[in-house]
Amino acid sequence: MIPRVIMSGIRPTGTGAAHLGHWEGALKSWVKLQDMGECFYSIVDWHALTTEYQDVKNIQGNVRQVLLDMLSVGIDPEKSVVYLQSAVKEISELFLLLGMMTPLGWLERVPTFKEQQAQLSDRDINTFGFLGYPLLQTVDIVIMKADTVPVGEDQVFHLELAREIVRRFNGLYGDCFPEPQPFLTPIPKLPGVDGRKMSKSYGNAIYLSDAASVVEEKIKPMVTDVRRKRRSDPGVPEDCPAFALHQAYSKAEEIAMVASECRRAGIGCLDCKKILINNINAFLDPFRQRRRRYEKMAVADILETGNRRAAARARETIARVRALMNV
Amino acid sequence: MIPRVIMSGIRPTGTGAAHLGHWEGALKSWVKLQDMGECFYSIVDWHALTTEYQDVKNIQGNVRQVLLDMLSVGIDPEKSVVYLQSAVKEISELFLLLGMMTPLGWLERVPTFKEQQAQLSDRDINTFGFLGYPLLQTVDIVIMKADTVPVGEDQVFHLELAREIVRRFNGLYGDCFPEPQPFLTPIPKLPGVDGRKMSKSYGNAIYLSDAASVVEEKIKPMVTDVRRKRRSDPGVPEDCPAFALHQAYSKAEEIAMVASECRRAGIGCLDCKKILINNINAFLDPFRQRRRRYEKMAVADILETGNRRAAARARETIARVRALMNV
Repeated sequence: MIPRVIMSGIRPTGTGAAHLGHWEGALKSWVKLQDMGECFYSIVDWHALTTEYQDVKNIQGNVRQVLLDMLSVGIDPEKSVVYLQSAVKEISELFLLLGMMTPLGWLERVPTFKEQQAQLSDRDINTFGFLGYPLLQTVDIVIMKADTVPVGEDQVFHLELAREIVRRFNGLYGDCFPEPQPFLTPIPKLPGVDGRKMSKSYGNAIYLSDAASVVEEKIKPMVTDVRRKRRSDPGVPEDCPAFALHQAYSKAEEIAMVASECRRAGIGCLDCKKILINNINAFLDPFRQRRRRYEKMAVADILETGNRRAAARARETIARVRALMNV
Repeated sequence: MIPRVIMSGIRPTGTGAAHLGHWEGALKSWVKLQDMGECFYSIVDWHALTTEYQDVKNIQGNVRQVLLDMLSVGIDPEKSVVYLQSAVKEISELFLLLGMMTPLGWLERVPTFKEQQAQLSDRDINTFGFLGYPLLQTVDIVIMKADTVPVGEDQVFHLELAREIVRRFNGLYGDCFPEPQPFLTPIPKLPGVDGRKMSKSYGNAIYLSDAASVVEEKIKPMVTDVRRKRRSDPGVPEDCPAFALHQAYSKAEEIAMVASECRRAGIGCLDCKKILINNINAFLDPFRQRRRRYEKMAVADILETGNRRAAARARETIARVRALMNV
């Protein structure tokens, strides 16, 4: 299927900022999809409430962070509609309306429902809103009449649910929504600087907005293969988190070189990391330049324009839904 | 507590029209409360979807019916804000926002949740929207900043839930909503013409909009005490549904007279019913006159005015909620 209308969203949670894992798993595909169809990219602040309703003070600050991240990686507001979820009020109306015909069991069966509750056991998220999370995702997608959603393998269940809801709606009230299909994005296996999966919550991430010096400070003390206690100990690159980053951000010949030199202790970890630092910084430099340019601009206006375009589409959709549901 | 802001709603379900039971259990109190505070009376079409999402074709026709019923009994659009729920879009936004902090268990424990599902076993209402029904009621109330809600004893649990949600919100984000208190209305025990509880779904109701001749046609063959097989058989008024209607709509001396005459077979059922028919029609006549006046007017404009007033209040409330929740 050729994507015609693409929709995806990013949550302004935690510190807001996106890291290399977000780039690999989502933003990279978002940039690419801009040349394949009409793109709706949303900063989903209502979604942030599903898990962070007890601590809301950072949400709007995070929105600006995430917006700058999106613009810095090359999401082009001339090409794509970049908007804030809560600015499109029709989303809440469609959430209410679709909820009326969405069986509870469909939502209770979503695997992430029980999983995330267990994972986020520090807070009380056994709420109506948290149960409705996949329904709100469905609304985000269908209100833009999107046919394509970039997702990782771990999210295809959510999209299956969205298609079920669409089929039920179209069956009950008449044809209205396309069935959204996944555009599969890689699940990033990037390690953070402590060797665990790169994640905001582990405090081990390299952010897209990190200055070159910050990247250096983070990588230098980074965990490597534990076998290399001394400079003269040979290592196993496959067991080294720094090597995993090399594989993502270094050139083929450098990857081959550091691998063979590591195995015979021909290169020290610090020298190996210097190459990595340079490569990550070279990769991030265009992002940094764009970010500097956008930081000087009124990005709120960019969002405002996106909000208007998104709301226009949402108004068309909700008008049809109201007519079909007779409310 | 002196009611300052009063809120209540009526569902435009079934055939729409309100019957004597609705008058006794709700509308009578609504009329009275108009002189006690600022009243918001809503035709809750979104609520109709919780149980009737599979058959929506009559909703808007019913809205007009219910509106005429309200006006005909003396809800005065100069005094009260009479509005359509779905015209106040802020309600859906607040539904989404309050849902984020409403524990699932609170909604699952609502007694009517399981009860109604059992009762309405002909349709599939195990939906997200049906579970969220008491939350949507809470939103209806708090978005108008109502402190008083006319309810029957059977609905006080819902109002308790509304207060719990209000306390949780005020605790998490700061003072915003008053805790709504019940204004207890009688639970009508009016029988229908078949002797069972008067109800739309039993087809045994006398509607506020019934013409005098229709009331006559319905009461004449009405069930009476089964002991009175023949004119000469004495009866027990307490076992006669027609006598229950006498008690509601006849004068004290008539009630005393038909009771004692029935017991000694001094009056036939038909003569007894003639008195009842006259009294019910005399009771309904002022409603009929008002209805005829309103039927000639553009009642859609009345609703439009109410919608604007309700939306103005809702906009104030939602602005404060957005600021407190930072979205």
